[in-house]
Amino acid sequence: MSSNPRIVLADNQYGKAETRVVRIYRDTDRHEIRDVNVSTALRGDFADAYRSGDQSKVLPTDTQKNTAYAYAKEKGLREIEEYALTLGRHFVADVAPVRGARIEVEEFAWARVEVDGREHDHTWVRSGSEVRTTVVTVEGEQAWVVSGLRDLVLLKSTGSEFAGFLTDEYTTLPETHDRIMSTSLVARWRYAGTEVNWDKSWADVRRILLERFASVHSLALQQTLWEMGSGVLEAHPEIAEIKLSAPNRHHFVVDLAPFGLDNPNEVFYAADRPYGLIECAVTRQDAPDPGLAWATVPGFA
Amino acid sequence: MSSNPRIVLADNQYGKAETRVVRIYRDTDRHEIRDVNVSTALRGDFADAYRSGDQSKVLPTDTQKNTAYAYAKEKGLREIEEYALTLGRHFVADVAPVRGARIEVEEFAWARVEVDGREHDHTWVRSGSEVRTTVVTVEGEQAWVVSGLRDLVLLKSTGSEFAGFLTDEYTTLPETHDRIMSTSLVARWRYAGTEVNWDKSWADVRRILLERFASVHSLALQQTLWEMGSGVLEAHPEIAEIKLSAPNRHHFVVDLAPFGLDNPNEVFYAADRPYGLIECAVTRQDAPDPGLAWATVPGFA
Amino acid sequence: MSSNPRIVLADNQYGKAETRVVRIYRDTDRHEIRDVNVSTALRGDFADAYRSGDQSKVLPTDTQKNTAYAYAKEKGLREIEEYALTLGRHFVADVAPVRGARIEVEEFAWARVEVDGREHDHTWVRSGSEVRTTVVTVEGEQAWVVSGLRDLVLLKSTGSEFAGFLTDEYTTLPETHDRIMSTSLVARWRYAGTEVNWDKSWADVRRILLERFASVHSLALQQTLWEMGSGVLEAHPEIAEIKLSAPNRHHFVVDLAPFGLDNPNEVFYAADRPYGLIECAVTRQDAPDPGLAWATVPGFA
Amino acid sequence: MSSNPRIVLADNQYGKAETRVVRIYRDTDRHEIRDVNVSTALRGDFADAYRSGDQSKVLPTDTQKNTAYAYAKEKGLREIEEYALTLGRHFVADVAPVRGARIEVEEFAWARVEVDGREHDHTWVRSGSEVRTTVVTVEGEQAWVVSGLRDLVLLKSTGSEFAGFLTDEYTTLPETHDRIMSTSLVARWRYAGTEVNWDKSWADVRRILLERFASVHSLALQQTLWEMGSGVLEAHPEIAEIKLSAPNRHHFVVDLAPFGLDNPNEVFYAADRPYGLIECAVTRQDAPDPGLAWATVPGFA
Repeated sequence: MSSNPRIVLADNQYGKAETRVVRIYRDTDRHEIRDVNVSTALRGDFADAYRSGDQSKVLPTDTQKNTAYAYAKEKGLREIEEYALTLGRHFVADVAPVRGARIEVEEFAWARVEVDGREHDHTWVRSGSEVRTTVVTVEGEQAWVVSGLRDLVLLKSTGSEFAGFLTDEYTTLPETHDRIMSTSLVARWRYAGTEVNWDKSWADVRRILLERFASVHSLALQQTLWEMGSGVLEAHPEIAEIKLSAPNRHHFVVDLAPFGLDNPNEVFYAADRPYGLIECAVTRQDAPDPGLAWATVPGFA
Repeated sequence: MSSNPRIVLADNQYGKAETRVVRIYRDTDRHEIRDVNVSTALRGDFADAYRSGDQSKVLPTDTQKNTAYAYAKEKGLREIEEYALTLGRHFVADVAPVRGARIEVEEFAWARVEVDGREHDHTWVRSGSEVRTTVVTVEGEQAWVVSGLRDLVLLKSTGSEFAGFLTDEYTTLPETHDRIMSTSLVARWRYAGTEVNWDKSWADVRRILLERFASVHSLALQQTLWEMGSGVLEAHPEIAEIKLSAPNRHHFVVDLAPFGLDNPNEVFYAADRPYGLIECAVTRQDAPDPGLAWATVPGFA
Repeated sequence: MSSNPRIVLADNQYGKAETRVVRIYRDTDRHEIRDVNVSTALRGDFADAYRSGDQSKVLPTDTQKNTAYAYAKEKGLREIEEYALTLGRHFVADVAPVRGARIEVEEFAWARVEVDGREHDHTWVRSGSEVRTTVVTVEGEQAWVVSGLRDLVLLKSTGSEFAGFLTDEYTTLPETHDRIMSTSLVARWRYAGTEVNWDKSWADVRRILLERFASVHSLALQQTLWEMGSGVLEAHPEIAEIKLSAPNRHHFVVDLAPFGLDNPNEVFYAADRPYGLIECAVTRQDAPDPGLAWATVPGFA
Repeated sequence: MSSNPRIVLADNQYGKAETRVVRIYRDTDRHEIRDVNVSTALRGDFADAYRSGDQSKVLPTDTQKNTAYAYAKEKGLREIEEYALTLGRHFVADVAPVRGARIEVEEFAWARVEVDGREHDHTWVRSGSEVRTTVVTVEGEQAWVVSGLRDLVLLKSTGSEFAGFLTDEYTTLPETHDRIMSTSLVARWRYAGTEVNWDKSWADVRRILLERFASVHSLALQQTLWEMGSGVLEAHPEIAEIKLSAPNRHHFVVDLAPFGLDNPNEVFYAADRPYGLIECAVTRQDAPDPGLAWATVPGFA
């Protein structure tokens, strides 16, 4: 233990990460499935666990895992936002040393298998690489919900330019007025409150993101992101702000001239690294700023 | 160089792996996309490159990459089997020291984004985690095609048992007559010839695999695989044999009794490792055995 | 473009991620190697790129990549902190619209191959899975350096307990007074200034982290982290604060009783998921709080 | 079940993959650790499990996992080859329907943490990214051992050329007489028998691979591989053949001329994909050919 009184414990949290819960609803022959990855983290009066090893205020991470499973049965697991809110409020309300909780849920999508053109009752195939996400932060009586998606991979084969940019002595990039634009989008949006039709809101935000990506004639990925983000806020008053992180997955036109071939944007090399990375937040001018809703750990990045 | 004449070079091949080719067809406003990962490997008279460093018979792997790009324009890239056959036959026919070639292509699926309910002309979203595959092996005048898919993730929430199994002194597993069965399927099938409607055949094999997985009341994953494999051979005379590799992605019923809760197959823990792994081949009794079609490297595994 | 004046662009940055630079020093026969992954991100007056697609203030990410390569030659690439500071200050000082920059560098370690017991002049083998990291944030005239490491995998086979913890109705975990403790540590520490012997400081922090992990009889992973973090601050006045993120990589004693075998902590199952996750900051009481040094994007988490 | 008698089950096997076993020896205060990943697969008379779902000859994969853990205690886990041989022979000898077994073991390396310059008794840090491997195949009374390593990442900054190669109309690559050569080696070697000092043999093969990579002035990666492979066979009469698979991890010299900078092989771009891939086997002329020792599944690739 540090003998130096000027060295102090600052922000901290602990929990159980990546508890894999699959919930089957089988009240009728037509089963339903929810497949999630849950991470819980608790904040509160835990300094003694660090400074003297006293665990008397520490609810084991194993118990947090048990609670995630038990609540999937006891409280149900339908909309991940509701499930996360219920878990987070439980820890803060029912476990004395806990003052705050962060509950993160990832949901994996399944589509029903079709047999003879009809949806099967109890068989699914994983659909899409994309993951639906939510992070619920509870602090005392308050709660914030940040929902989103990641690994949404998009590509448009025209309707994208990049020209008129700033140059310096290290610039060699030529301008282009027709290129492939592709990204693997991470989008997260903070709800103003907690009374929301979560599934419906999520699906419509996703729809807007896709439609704007497709429809905007893009002068830069930045512009496309702004159109996506502002489009979401315009249509969804229940959302206070949205943050987008978009790698620019470069597709380079291959030079086929050495082989006597023309290549008018038909054959591309899809590069892995490096990649551009554009990150922005779009918010309402009058939105309060609960930065806490976004923090992985308060004070961490 | 080894001074020991009894130490010899045996099977070998070399090539360029994972060339990422994106081919856009833009002859009309409605673009088409093919997104593939190509690996080429050449076999032949290359012993001098090993034993004395003489490269005079070695076509650079960089040239193989160039050829993959050039052919996407020159010969086209529609069905991956045709593209791979064309590439493989080129190397064997046109590059003197080359006696055989192995061309592997992975294809990533894209679905058109919908805007206002209509498919967009030039914007796509990646669909599914599953990958379509083909391996074409050319040896002199002969060619074999092994097509398939991987990462096809399936789950059924009932209709699966595991009981009546052999036990020994290390057995603790209880029998079950109702469990989740889930896998991430790898399927590969060898065509008897090379005159095939590749896209149509692939789509129908996939349909059969899904339908059998859903419809068979399973007494073991082995049984399900047999039904899938034999179902494909029954319906597709153009296919000589099929090989299936299926991890048993265990979903364990969580014991909620300590919390006073019943759990009649509703809440599961989805485990990562270890996992069961079932591998089998289903073939026609009279099918010739071109094992070469399956070898990553002749003589390797 | 949004027609709603109350919807605004908030925090944003853009750059080139994961530029892979290998720098060889070959002034003598004994070469030196630096192998890094560089991500640069710029902040400043870029709103027009979002709102109207005007790129006239946007230095391309391709140019940022070029600069990373050019500087490896022009300015040198020895200590990653110096390299990152030089890059960051360049963008802020020399590119008019840029007000801030975030430069992240990962360094991969190589050890010289030994031939006949002597270190080879120009051949290396990758050593360790661990990665050295630094993040330099420049804002106008100011600069902060946060260095660290990740993927440092540690294990002790005894000297670790977990007992006396809080319980509730979802607790089933038994107490233990002897267990395996293992983690894959992420450590990051913020320097108070920028005049530091970076390589020497980094190596000694790493030494302290390892020694404390080994030497502390642990009543909880929290206690071990506190001892590691406070130990670093005690020995290194140039460091203002340190943040640790430590998964508890569970190793469960396997029940061999069904097979008539005792298992006094000799055979373990190393689990993947879920895992405990303990995160904490240790700081000096009087340290100023430049939270900006830690932000991936200002306002993001 | 297939009603077509001409459709038959061919090669098949089943087992438990990736059982993570950590074995601590703690007979004295100075503990020892073995950290492995075990995959077992059984072959034999299992057709009924496929064709009718009859499991009466199927030992559960769960039992195979239990056996892997029990044997780590009962028989010990020191050299992975001995452990794998013992497991494989047990399944074939003691489980009636089993005719063959394939046991694959990966071992992760740990180095003792040093405290005050002395090795700690019970604390380790993961050393290196490389993995030691063995595959033991038992068929009736016979057994073969194929040991090896993977993810051994090597780089030399000079002493490598590529010139004088074959060209065709798709060749654009210039010759080079000085380049970086780097690979992530997979090496596997088959022992002629099973009476071997496994640890000693493995360590010396690794030494030879590294020394040859460093010492050979390379005219091509092929030549380096030949020198590595033949060097192993020359020094190790107990080894019958060796197979090497080596990606050519390209490091491209960055063109700094646009920035007025010379770049005499000092600054490189380390590329991810595509990469060259060279695969070869080196064998003794009179070595018998138990191809079975190399098969993942008999008949599979």
